[in-house]
This record gives sequence, C-alpha cells and structure tokens, in this order.
Amino acid sequence: MKLSVNQATVKRASLPELVDACARHGVEGVGLWREPVREHGLDRAAALVERAGLTVSSLCRGGFFTGEDPRLDDNRRAVDEAAALGARCLVLVPGGVSGRDLAGSRARVGEALGALAPYAADAGVRLALEPMHPVFCADRGVVSTLAQALELVGPHDGVGVVVDALHVWWDPALEASVAAAGADVLSYQVCDWTTPLPADVLLGRGLPGDGHIDLVGLTSLVRAAGYTGFVEVEVFNEAVWELPADHVVAELVKRHATGWEPVVDGGHDRLPATP
Amino acid sequence: MKLSVNQATVKRASLPELVDACARHGVEGVGLWREPVREHGLDRAAALVERAGLTVSSLCRGGFFTGEDPRLDDNRRAVDEAAALGARCLVLVPGGVSGRDLAGSRARVGEALGALAPYAADAGVRLALEPMHPVFCADRGVVSTLAQALELVGPHDGVGVVVDALHVWWDPALEASVAAAGADVLSYQVCDWTTPLPADVLLGRGLPGDGHIDLVGLTSLVRAAGYTGFVEVEVFNEAVWELPADHVVAELVKRHATGWEPVVDGGHDRLPATP
Repeated sequence: MKLSVNQATVKRASLPELVDACARHGVEGVGLWREPVREHGLDRAAALVERAGLTVSSLCRGGFFTGEDPRLDDNRRAVDEAAALGARCLVLVPGGVSGRDLAGSRARVGEALGALAPYAADAGVRLALEPMHPVFCADRGVVSTLAQALELVGPHDGVGVVVDALHVWWDPALEASVAAAGADVLSYQVCDWTTPLPADVLLGRGLPGDGHIDLVGLTSLVRAAGYTGFVEVEVFNEAVWELPADHVVAELVKRHATGWEPVVDGGHDRLPATP
Repeated sequence: MKLSVNQATVKRASLPELVDACARHGVEGVGLWREPVREHGLDRAAALVERAGLTVSSLCRGGFFTGEDPRLDDNRRAVDEAAALGARCLVLVPGGVSGRDLAGSRARVGEALGALAPYAADAGVRLALEPMHPVFCADRGVVSTLAQALELVGPHDGVGVVVDALHVWWDPALEASVAAAGADVLSYQVCDWTTPLPADVLLGRGLPGDGHIDLVGLTSLVRAAGYTGFVEVEVFNEAVWELPADHVVAELVKRHATGWEPVVDGGHDRLPATP
C-alpha cells in the first residue's frame, strides 16, 4: 500500500507546507479536512494537490446524522468538495447518541446514507462510513463496530467503510469483519493507541508503531480483503503537532517502509525527537 | 431488584460510615473493595456488615490475568476474602493487552479462569468476569463484550459475568447477549456515561440518570434474563466523592425508586447538590 499523510497529523502546517513535505519525501497521497481546505480555497487546494501529483485519499468529513436535523445540506456540500478534490472517498462520522436511544440513532444513520447515496453517486464520490471506537458512542459515533457499519452501508451502492486502526483494533470480530468488508473498504487509516490516555481522549493517538495496536496484523487483514488503496496516517497528538511537518513526514516514510513494525517492542509514547 | 451501594461510589467514607448510611436509608446491599476491607480488617469487616444485616453483593476485585504472571496466588486470596465476607461474587477484571497480542491475551484469561474455578468452587465463591469498555482494552480489560465474556466463562462451572452498564451500553449485540447470559449474570452494576469526559477517563462516570445510558431499558433486559440479585451502583466521580456518604446514599435510594429514569431528559453531569 502506498502511504498517505492525513492533514490532521501535521495540523499546524499549511496545506502548501504539507504538499511540499510530501513531494520532498516521495509521499503520493494526502488526506484532507474540509475546514483547512476551505481556508485555502477549494479550487486553489484542488489545483495545488493536482500540480503536485498527489492523490487525495480521503476528505474528512461529513456525517453527524443522528440529531433532529441529519444535516443533509451540509453533507451534500461535502460531497461537492470531495468531487472537486477528486478525493477517493468522503469520510462520514455517524454522530452520537440522541436522547438515550441507540437503536433509533443508529437507524437515522442508515436513513441519512440512503438519502445521500444517490447524490454522491451522481457526483462520482464514494461515501465511507467510519465505525468509531465505543469511547465516542455518546458524542460522535453510534456505529461502534465494522460489522455494524457494513450492515448499514450494505443496501447502498457506492457506500463503503473506513477501517481506522484506532477505532476497530479492540474488536473481537475484527478478522471476520475485515474479510467480510472486502471491496467495501474505501479507506484504511492508521495510528496507535498509547497509554496512559491524555486528558483529552481525542488526542490519545500515537504515531503508528508507538502503542498497543498490532498494525502489522491489521494491515495484513486489510490487504487480504483485497484493499489496494493508500494507508493513511491520521494522528491527533499534541506532541506530534509541535514537530515540523517535514520531520513528521520523514518519520512516517521510515515507519511505513518497515510495514508498521513496532518501533521498540513494548515501547509506548515514543515520538521522533525534534531534529 | 434491591439496591446495593458500591464502596467506590463513596470512596472517602469509612466502611462503618457506609454501613451506617445504608442502615439509615434502608439499603440492604453493599459492594466492597479488597483494599479498604483489608484496612478495616477482613474479619471485622465481615462482622460489621453481618451485624448490620447487609449482603455483600460483590467483592472487587481479582483478575489481571494477561501478564507473564497470571497472579493466581493473589486471586486465590481474593477468593478467600470473598468467602469470608459471604460475597455474592468476586469480580474479575481481565487485564490489558500483552505484547500487542490480543488473541493471546484473551486466551490467557480463559486459562486463568480454568485454573481458578475449582478453588473458588471449593470455597463456595462465584467468580464474575467483567467485560470492560474497549477504552480499557489496552491497559485493563481485553474482554470487550458480554458475548466474549460468556464464551470465556462457558466451560467453567460457577463462573459467570458482571453486567456493568458503563462497560456494555454501546454494544450493538447487547440485547441478545444479556438474554444469552441468563443465569450467568452474577452482578448488575449501574452508573452513567457523561460527557464531556473528564481528564481521567476512569472517572467519567455519573450517577445513574445523569448521562447517555438507557438504564431503564438495560434494567429491563437484565430482569428479563432472570436476574434477581442486587442492582449495585458503582460510580467513580470526583464530584460525588466530595459529597457526604449519607447524602449520596439518600440520592441513590430516590433514583432507584424511579427505576433509574433520567433525572432530567437530556441533562448531563447533574449531581445532587451538597445539602
């Protein structure tokens, strides 16, 4: 799999800085986020990545379907933006539990996918539903397992799933679910689960190889399922954000070359030293 | 179901203070922890709860089976302590992932249960394996779902499971798994999932009724599975710990009487005001 660097991993870098770092280190893919793309200007961003020969492996993010308003207008705009960028998929975050009604909230995700799928198909954009770690079930994602995500996307053409190591690594059914996903895997994202968790659990992600996740094993499963797309590194980590983008990208290239072998067996929270 | 108050809910109260508060408010069960019991003296603690007519609905905790040393000696001591207290069950925490090998770590839990079950049976103590929320998979509990826990305890007589609302509420298979558990449910614990999570995710538990969990629904499932034991309130929450034990127990009695109806629909982080 080719390497892609998600923009959130080097959140403090500008889009041109990220593109430059990728060019310098031979990285061929980037994962983008709507807000910084909008800040740079959608058309300018599309032109910038195209000129650099980069593929946009994913655009983050649409979704949040579980409230009173399933935000379909905003999601259609996200589809348009993904189309303009030529993104391989638009990542959809399910949304959190509404009114303590998990079953109802999950059903709303399915309904919203049904409403959005034809629009995305017309635009030539593939939608990728992201099952999220159960720690986010209350406030971000009521779809907690890959199997559950596959059930929800099943009825809709052109809709698939994201396999994000952080969200799925703990799942007892992981092996079977990845195999079942097959061609429905539209995006494969990696980072690592480090302990102790930081104060903001959202930022509890280490660089791949620094934590408890068997990324070598998961990558094999995803490859065996037939996935041939990018492996995208998406890390939310304050210490990584402090590092220059160029340094982070170089480190990721090095780690990618090892197939995400653990950096030090049993070692956690190991970040690249500032140069 | 009768109410039981877990000692951790009023962690800063002494055992006699907890027993007094239960007596004053007509609570018939307590969940105890090994460390404070040891501090009070095991025999004295057993005599104290017996004199007060209290049932020890659970003793926390044994387990942590996944390391190089499965700690069987300490677990046998925990069994002895549970027997001395006449506890309805000994709660077993699985232990976190060892060396990135989830499958191997989970297998170790099964082996340890096999090694411990005959000793517990001889002592007349029932072992209750606790499936834990996946947020704890790395460092505390590799058993992440009730179905997985049932698979592990299945082969062993006298070994069952804990259903703790916090750990299982997000599970898409919850309804089926609770039904399948049936008489294997040895302990039912409640608290609530509140957002935003505090800095220490271990303390992200609200009083039942204050958060996102459908406790009315879960309690129905547990009752329908044939469970007739105590409903034990186990809350780790800094703000609750600041309150006098008597006040907390009174509040729990009030909430228990409503069947754990949400305190305010959609309200979160609502704690009883200090008197």
